[in-house]
Amino acid sequence: MGLLEKIERPRDLDGLTHQELAGLSREIRDFLIEKVARTGGHLGPNLGAVELTLALHRVFDSPRDRILWDTGHQSYVHKMLTGRREGFDRLRQKGGLSGYPSAAESDHDIIENSHASTALSYADGLAKAYRLRGVRDRAVVAVIGDGALTGGMAWEALNNIAAAQDRPVIIVINDNGRSYSPTIGGLATHLAALRTTRGYEKFLASAKETLNTTPVVGPALYSALHGAKKGLKDILAPQGMFEDLGLKYVGPIDGHDTEALENALRMARDFGGPVAVHCLTTKGHGYRPAEDDQLDHFHGVGVIDPVTGKPTKPAGRSWTSVFADELVEVGTEREDVVAITAAMLHPTGLHKFQKAFPDRVFDVGIAEQHAVTSAAGLALGGLHPVVAVYATFLNRAFDQVLMDVALHKCGVTFVLDRAGVTGDDGASHNGMWDLSILQVVPGLRVCAPRDADTLRAGLREAVEVDEAPTVVRFPKGALAEPVPAIGTAGGMDVLARGGTEDVLVVSVGAMAGECVELAGLLEAQGIGATVVDPRWVKPVNEEIPRLAARHRLVVTVEDGGRSGGVGAAVAQALQAAGVDTPVRTFGIPQRFLDHGKRPDLLTECGLTAHQLFLAVVDQIPGADTAAAPDGAAAPDEIRPYDQSARPAAARATGKVNR
Amino acid sequence: MGLLEKIERPRDLDGLTHQELAGLSREIRDFLIEKVARTGGHLGPNLGAVELTLALHRVFDSPRDRILWDTGHQSYVHKMLTGRREGFDRLRQKGGLSGYPSAAESDHDIIENSHASTALSYADGLAKAYRLRGVRDRAVVAVIGDGALTGGMAWEALNNIAAAQDRPVIIVINDNGRSYSPTIGGLATHLAALRTTRGYEKFLASAKETLNTTPVVGPALYSALHGAKKGLKDILAPQGMFEDLGLKYVGPIDGHDTEALENALRMARDFGGPVAVHCLTTKGHGYRPAEDDQLDHFHGVGVIDPVTGKPTKPAGRSWTSVFADELVEVGTEREDVVAITAAMLHPTGLHKFQKAFPDRVFDVGIAEQHAVTSAAGLALGGLHPVVAVYATFLNRAFDQVLMDVALHKCGVTFVLDRAGVTGDDGASHNGMWDLSILQVVPGLRVCAPRDADTLRAGLREAVEVDEAPTVVRFPKGALAEPVPAIGTAGGMDVLARGGTEDVLVVSVGAMAGECVELAGLLEAQGIGATVVDPRWVKPVNEEIPRLAARHRLVVTVEDGGRSGGVGAAVAQALQAAGVDTPVRTFGIPQRFLDHGKRPDLLTECGLTAHQLFLAVVDQIPGADTAAAPDGAAAPDEIRPYDQSARPAAARATGKVNR
Repeated sequence: MGLLEKIERPRDLDGLTHQELAGLSREIRDFLIEKVARTGGHLGPNLGAVELTLALHRVFDSPRDRILWDTGHQSYVHKMLTGRREGFDRLRQKGGLSGYPSAAESDHDIIENSHASTALSYADGLAKAYRLRGVRDRAVVAVIGDGALTGGMAWEALNNIAAAQDRPVIIVINDNGRSYSPTIGGLATHLAALRTTRGYEKFLASAKETLNTTPVVGPALYSALHGAKKGLKDILAPQGMFEDLGLKYVGPIDGHDTEALENALRMARDFGGPVAVHCLTTKGHGYRPAEDDQLDHFHGVGVIDPVTGKPTKPAGRSWTSVFADELVEVGTEREDVVAITAAMLHPTGLHKFQKAFPDRVFDVGIAEQHAVTSAAGLALGGLHPVVAVYATFLNRAFDQVLMDVALHKCGVTFVLDRAGVTGDDGASHNGMWDLSILQVVPGLRVCAPRDADTLRAGLREAVEVDEAPTVVRFPKGALAEPVPAIGTAGGMDVLARGGTEDVLVVSVGAMAGECVELAGLLEAQGIGATVVDPRWVKPVNEEIPRLAARHRLVVTVEDGGRSGGVGAAVAQALQAAGVDTPVRTFGIPQRFLDHGKRPDLLTECGLTAHQLFLAVVDQIPGADTAAAPDGAAAPDEIRPYDQSARPAAARATGKVNR
Repeated sequence: MGLLEKIERPRDLDGLTHQELAGLSREIRDFLIEKVARTGGHLGPNLGAVELTLALHRVFDSPRDRILWDTGHQSYVHKMLTGRREGFDRLRQKGGLSGYPSAAESDHDIIENSHASTALSYADGLAKAYRLRGVRDRAVVAVIGDGALTGGMAWEALNNIAAAQDRPVIIVINDNGRSYSPTIGGLATHLAALRTTRGYEKFLASAKETLNTTPVVGPALYSALHGAKKGLKDILAPQGMFEDLGLKYVGPIDGHDTEALENALRMARDFGGPVAVHCLTTKGHGYRPAEDDQLDHFHGVGVIDPVTGKPTKPAGRSWTSVFADELVEVGTEREDVVAITAAMLHPTGLHKFQKAFPDRVFDVGIAEQHAVTSAAGLALGGLHPVVAVYATFLNRAFDQVLMDVALHKCGVTFVLDRAGVTGDDGASHNGMWDLSILQVVPGLRVCAPRDADTLRAGLREAVEVDEAPTVVRFPKGALAEPVPAIGTAGGMDVLARGGTEDVLVVSVGAMAGECVELAGLLEAQGIGATVVDPRWVKPVNEEIPRLAARHRLVVTVEDGGRSGGVGAAVAQALQAAGVDTPVRTFGIPQRFLDHGKRPDLLTECGLTAHQLFLAVVDQIPGADTAAAPDGAAAPDEIRPYDQSARPAAARATGKVNR
């Protein structure tokens, strides 16, 4: 029986020697590798945080002391030490253990949001509350990565935490020199400088190595090297930027040495004011395949062979890869197209563009606000930027999209990957917000492609727009099957047409397959359905009210929150046209979804063809109560599919096969 | 004839001596005081930026060189020097000069957004674009206040600008030690330290003075004093946080000495890399009433007497003051209620709460993200925070409201002042977004009070909610006339009832007066209208679908963007209930509004009673085509007004007088 099996709560760690802790660390890593290899999940960050987590739980008394895990994907070890080891068999599965902290799982968890850079603000609030309430025996500890420190709100928090010298907050910087890819920017330079006490030679070697494999961040790493030289001097009196802000600085500490960590954390705990503890860790530590992986040190993995680290089944062709390849094509044709990522070069597929055009990709750090507004600057400077970001993270720069880009009529294209239900990563990773909040942005246009061809075509149409922002949004994972158009109507693709014009189905993006199936189910009941895919879902296609006036019911189906989404916009467009055909909008219910697989969650949301059929079949008014508005033009006839009307890129598979 | 009349473009400044510039500065100040006293506008910031603006236009060649004004309210002098002096007679009036830079007005203007902290990101983008395009003869200069530097996105930008040593961006810090109120936080401390070369004694005196008048920022200023002592040493080798990030630092410079400024700017221009020029200015410089004003040095003024600086007409009772007074009442009764402002203590009215409870107000700087997430921390720590912010600025923390507060079920109350059309300050100050984007936030409830009583009651109801975020939103300026309820229906106030149930008018917030007038106009045409005010507009009151089913048309009227707002939510609620009564949603058209007076803009939006009447009168279906859903419960009878059902605070004027 190993040590790990005896640890049911943090206090079970108390009596262990540092030698025993080293053994326990090995057991924890073996456990992590075995379990995560089976389920997939965040592996590299957790392998890097083993000793740090042990030390935190030895020095602090959670949950009385509050340990806040920024971003949350490095909390697996914390979960293991707080009675949730059993849960790892069903990690990230519906009803199983969440891949992030979860207050529903444990009193030891607080932050459930997986968006980065929030922990310091929570910590500032908690510390203020405890101070006001006279609570003196609870420490507030925030664990934040060097990557998350590049996010603006972390800086806002540092500025506030530092302002109150008598209100203790312990900031533990888990510095592995990386967010997903190496952390960039002046801050990274400064951290790198501080990092050099570990050994200048070693640092130089590792930095050079990284420089060779990821040339896109060359400038920052050049500065990092430069900073490292300067840093040797700084280290002698480490009064860097933290102390300038008024934060006591402790470090750098070897993040894999429990004894050193505990000493530093104890010092910080007893200091009585705001303090930063700078810990140097290695992502993927102790697992050779992860340590050797230059891409992202196994930041997140699918199911893998635990020995080799290789995926056990090949990934299918993804939405991301179609975008990535097409953007390279676009970049070859247009020198003015540049790309921006917020620390997600590979996950967004931009590494391909970077390989082709190294000067034309900008990784700005975990800094979506800056990504968006610097894109506005690039547009004002005569280029066409493509900002590739997960859909849920665009929420962090909503104001910048609205005010800095749209108000200024900048031609910026936003590519929203992981839009709609993503599932595994829980509530804060689902991209169910964009179709609603972007509706309010004047001038902005949104394309929701339904398959590879419409994605390629949509991207090309988007980058042609130079006087307004455009958005192309698509789901996570494997591409949807192609859904061919059988005709066009006012620029929309017609995907199905029934014998009678009873129900008009407006399909959004990847819901096309379900919508065509829905039409088949209705047809079998003698209810005729027309399925249209506008592809560009904002603004509402002008043909929709005209078509709606000829049908008895309008049904909209989208992979986004129902409130204020495309369906709501369609309903308002009908109102504006005086068309009172009833509308039923289907989308994700406006609540936070638990983690699970995408198909399961779509079923939970009632978005399968069969569920839609059951919801719609008895809603069709018996009599035709809808009338075309006075003087409305006759709707465009639905014409046979005209290939020449489609952009070139879409023609290849534009076959009519229904 | 003065010098000023001869300046039609920046190059007209070239031949002037520094003595002539001093004279010109006096002329500019006289002009500013005379004009802004008549129209109202931002006075203090512009009086402080006279010499800085002259120096910038002497050293740089706008518009070839790009001068980016962060926040924009300090651009009046820039406007005067770029051919727009005539426009000041109609400053901020419809069709007149904008109070912010405006690309439509001049090639010299770029950023039109009045939200703070964006300029550095624009600058980074422009510099990248020029570099990629091989443009070498255009300098990029961003002018940013010390207050705006507390905003996270400014830090994100600094981190990126500093990362490229060979891509020049000139950052001019216009440091007056204040945003609206004194700038707070660790950064302010550091700037204060740098500032001390001007004279330690003088700094100490001024800091002490500020400390006395604004005790809320005591902790930060305490640190500032502490920092100042430490700073004397730093100054000898000014390698502070800017140099740690990799930014060359020049300063501090006397911001009212054109010669010193020009020397520093020239040095920065010729440096060839990213550089920060730290300029010390005084808000309100050269105008005694502004210099003497300890509140905000005349940051923004209405119409004033130019000699005394006193307002020429007393301001009426405002929405803000009703909120401010009621919050003090609430704070007296509940020790757990605390307040947060993002550098807007006075404009939001929180200074009253601060005066009553100095320990219970937190000014976090221009840092809305941190304001929101630290509020979540305060809530998790057992308190009930009230975050008071302008409606338009909440957009900057949308993700934090959604993920950090709502996902975590934190009881945080957001008070959105300046909601709806605000007018004078143009597109980026109108609060026309909140009612739409907040619809998507699960669990969040929104109250839109229509007058003083419903504001007081709404605030009290909001702070009672401890398991979800609440929002109370109200307009800018003078209170609306009280609109009495004549009955209740399912918890909603009934404001008017017609002889027949033809039109159901759902009134949102301050639109109540127009809605009641609309009902009168309809009644005169024999069309019966029921006007209800739900007060809590999210979620949609369950009685609305039932009432809607009995009427022939539903009309919603809101002072917010029409896309996805309350009207759209009402329409979706009707759908969900299977009620197909036609809905017409009235709100602000989804475009950016030009500056102008609120009543004029509401007319432009078609939101007056008469316009609504014309839009509605021919929309009422001739026959009753709407049917109640099968099995729907009979709607609650509209009952006579029951005072006891209202919270105590609302009873005083709850009279039935219709």
